[in-house]
Amino acid sequence: MRVYDFGAGNPDPGSFPSKELAEATARVLERDGDKLVLYPDRRGHAPLREVGAVRFAKNHGRDMPIDSMALTTGSMQAISLVCQAFLKPGDTIITEEFSYSGSIRCFRQYEANMVGIPVDDEGMNTDALEEALKELDRKGTMPKFVYSIGTNQNPTGTMMPVHRREKLLQITQRYGIPVIDDDCYADLLFGIPAPTSLYAMDPDSVIYIGSFSKIMGPGMRLGFFAAKDEWLQDILDWKIDGGTNNFAAFVAAEYLKDHLWDHIDDINVIVKSKLDVLVDALDANKDAFLEHSNPKGGLFIWIKLPEDADPNRILEIATERGVRYGTGKAFHSGGEDVHYLRIAFGHASHDDFREGIPLLAECVREARAIPIAAAT
Amino acid sequence: MRVYDFGAGNPDPGSFPSKELAEATARVLERDGDKLVLYPDRRGHAPLREVGAVRFAKNHGRDMPIDSMALTTGSMQAISLVCQAFLKPGDTIITEEFSYSGSIRCFRQYEANMVGIPVDDEGMNTDALEEALKELDRKGTMPKFVYSIGTNQNPTGTMMPVHRREKLLQITQRYGIPVIDDDCYADLLFGIPAPTSLYAMDPDSVIYIGSFSKIMGPGMRLGFFAAKDEWLQDILDWKIDGGTNNFAAFVAAEYLKDHLWDHIDDINVIVKSKLDVLVDALDANKDAFLEHSNPKGGLFIWIKLPEDADPNRILEIATERGVRYGTGKAFHSGGEDVHYLRIAFGHASHDDFREGIPLLAECVREARAIPIAAAT
Repeated sequence: MRVYDFGAGNPDPGSFPSKELAEATARVLERDGDKLVLYPDRRGHAPLREVGAVRFAKNHGRDMPIDSMALTTGSMQAISLVCQAFLKPGDTIITEEFSYSGSIRCFRQYEANMVGIPVDDEGMNTDALEEALKELDRKGTMPKFVYSIGTNQNPTGTMMPVHRREKLLQITQRYGIPVIDDDCYADLLFGIPAPTSLYAMDPDSVIYIGSFSKIMGPGMRLGFFAAKDEWLQDILDWKIDGGTNNFAAFVAAEYLKDHLWDHIDDINVIVKSKLDVLVDALDANKDAFLEHSNPKGGLFIWIKLPEDADPNRILEIATERGVRYGTGKAFHSGGEDVHYLRIAFGHASHDDFREGIPLLAECVREARAIPIAAAT
Repeated sequence: MRVYDFGAGNPDPGSFPSKELAEATARVLERDGDKLVLYPDRRGHAPLREVGAVRFAKNHGRDMPIDSMALTTGSMQAISLVCQAFLKPGDTIITEEFSYSGSIRCFRQYEANMVGIPVDDEGMNTDALEEALKELDRKGTMPKFVYSIGTNQNPTGTMMPVHRREKLLQITQRYGIPVIDDDCYADLLFGIPAPTSLYAMDPDSVIYIGSFSKIMGPGMRLGFFAAKDEWLQDILDWKIDGGTNNFAAFVAAEYLKDHLWDHIDDINVIVKSKLDVLVDALDANKDAFLEHSNPKGGLFIWIKLPEDADPNRILEIATERGVRYGTGKAFHSGGEDVHYLRIAFGHASHDDFREGIPLLAECVREARAIPIAAAT
């Protein structure tokens, strides 16, 4: 059976720079191989932080000192370390109502009490955030942080505009609540400039989380965070792993210092063309896929399903037929069985979308309480 | 000023296989590069676990199923994850009285109450272990685990014989206490076979921790643990980092599958010759270095200092003169200012030992309460 995998947020396999990375490895091992018998720096390989800093300055018009940054095993490790540094079991945190399933699993593992704020086309609704904070303040359960994915929100594929970012920070600053700015999809933009990150607006109350995995591949496991020194040290105290992989960091830095922008441009063209094919396929099946977001970047599109189609039944049928996707439930902060699903469009091919999306539409139709045939 | 760095447990820089790793990288990226756009397996790259399993079977005469293993960011991450899975703040654990400073820092970070068991020439003294457990049982503060480095104990450089390993397990089994078998120096043996590991004797009550960093370099950040499935899953629930670095694991597996035993033989010859030079230098300065252990492998030797030489004063003088080493205090489970120091002999050169050890001896002499000149 042919499998159509629209599940994980993986980049395009054809764009992985195998040849260039092999060359970078040969150069860096000849020059610095003997340094790999040493433990990594506490903050990780400085030249890769330098790449991150250059990227941040270009995207956000503000310096990110490399001493304020620390490399991590993907951005996921940074999220976990922030939990260790900031949370005790039972503490409250705020997330978007729909958020990255990996982050949600992490927050649950640390026994956080997640309060999900509704999202609209512009990301986290700040009026709802304000209401929620008033209520939590009344109950004496103020959140330890607000976790937000402003750019290419995962799973909903929305982009938070600058005016809303400003509003969000006004509110959190008033209550003195730290913000975790998960900007791991920041480079994946389809012809628009990067929106100013929350961290660039207020580096004293925001922890920035970035990634190199989205532009190379998750197998490289390279992410980072940036924070004011007090928080950086608190978070690093929990990074008990002898340091972030220097072999991967040496090679990534050697490659990205010359190829960062070209490579980003290349992959965005490829991924955008996949999104276009996917959207055509979705729009040709509007009875199954009622609405979808209009991603301006990232790897994900968020799709509204008919109310009379049981999400668990859809999953069952689609699994049988080899179609994989992200269930709405996996991305709901409260674990609810919502009538949405997420399609990742970075890894699958044009043909996968042309064939797999109509197949998934069939699964949705079959799962509806009233069969299509009877309804028409 | 020339610096003599006998501090960190780094391997010989000349033996790092830069050329072979560059070749392995070129091969593996050409063959499997596009797989690096995927997330790693939950347990980590299977072919590298395979290398670990083959090594374990040869060393310990027992299979280690690769499903019982999970790769980690160095063996240090495995120790941290075990703490997350097994400990609450204030819980008691047992370690050797002198143990690896990184593990001690980790246990303190998780607010463990460490009970240190005296070590002699054969490692952890099991009579003392039995007494301590009786006492803890009486107080109702049974340890959550016993952490032991049986082979090439760090920092004391001792080797626990099989009869004592058996005794240790008899005791812990009687009380139903898990044992953490930190075997990360297992490959570094100077002409003797690997002693049977605690895990090989009882895989149901022991968690095994291994490393690939000691035979390649800590910059590769590749370790692993093995445990029965229930514990493996509990520990992996805390491994929230998106998976262990696949780029490094792909390359290490490609290299080690053909070169493991040759490379181990090569580095052991090199490191042993360094130890010989170091021991000669120590023995030529017996007034400063009263006694030292006789390592049969590993990277460390443990040195007894005169009682009238203040360890903090020695550190002060040695730091001024560019001699670095591990203080006894850093390796003491209770953080006591003991009259010992640790010399790492993997990374420094023959000349470093010939020049640096007499220099360190001078520092010890100057730190003595009664100056040598006045005493003679």
